[in-house]
Amino acid sequence: MDDDERAIHELVDRWIKATKAGDTDAVLELIAEDALFMVRSGMFGKEAFRAGSESLRDSKIEGTAEIREIHVEGNWAWIRNHIDLIVTPAGGEPVKRTGPALTILKKGEDGRWRLFRDANLVT
Amino acid sequence: MDDDERAIHELVDRWIKATKAGDTDAVLELIAEDALFMVRSGMFGKEAFRAGSESLRDSKIEGTAEIREIHVEGNWAWIRNHIDLIVTPAGGEPVKRTGPALTILKKGEDGRWRLFRDANLVT
Repeated sequence: MDDDERAIHELVDRWIKATKAGDTDAVLELIAEDALFMVRSGMFGKEAFRAGSESLRDSKIEGTAEIREIHVEGNWAWIRNHIDLIVTPAGGEPVKRTGPALTILKKGEDGRWRLFRDANLVT
Repeated sequence: MDDDERAIHELVDRWIKATKAGDTDAVLELIAEDALFMVRSGMFGKEAFRAGSESLRDSKIEGTAEIREIHVEGNWAWIRNHIDLIVTPAGGEPVKRTGPALTILKKGEDGRWRLFRDANLVT
């Protein structure tokens, strides 16, 4: 594993840890300003991601994201993840969300990798 | 638009034309042998894609695929497509399928681009 691959593995680990901790700001640091998230119900950017994350503030989130494939080419990379989450709303029943995601990452001028495009097929 | 971008636009055009014509073989030529398709219901490879296409042989397919973003980096590229399809089974009602797709393409040793990973959020 080279330095870029290691940095991307660390990004995914940090993402999941921050998500479980409910630390939205830490997750947002891993996302490019002009990122786009593609989900079944449509497409949204970083601001909507923030709003969505904050709406989950009272939920308990457990789970894993496992990189199944990674390819780095210059300042670009793509990964295929397998995601397993259990989201338990305050006072509610746990909801299992599982499935693949295909993600494009970009290395910024500061040398840090950030999520740029994300197609999430978790259901 | 450089030569690679033009070749990828042509690939998408050829894909849609062959799909509408029910020409599965022509579509399969645009797909890497080790390609993976990610959809809501799971993940599948080229052989399952072929079987799925052949099961649609008696359906009428109309529609468009429009490249909204493209980035080429070396022998790799990614595109964000917007897909609009109307699938009419023989003797059935038309079903509209619309949404985004995020696709990774790879240039082979023969200099031809082929679909490598595809996350399809069309619903």
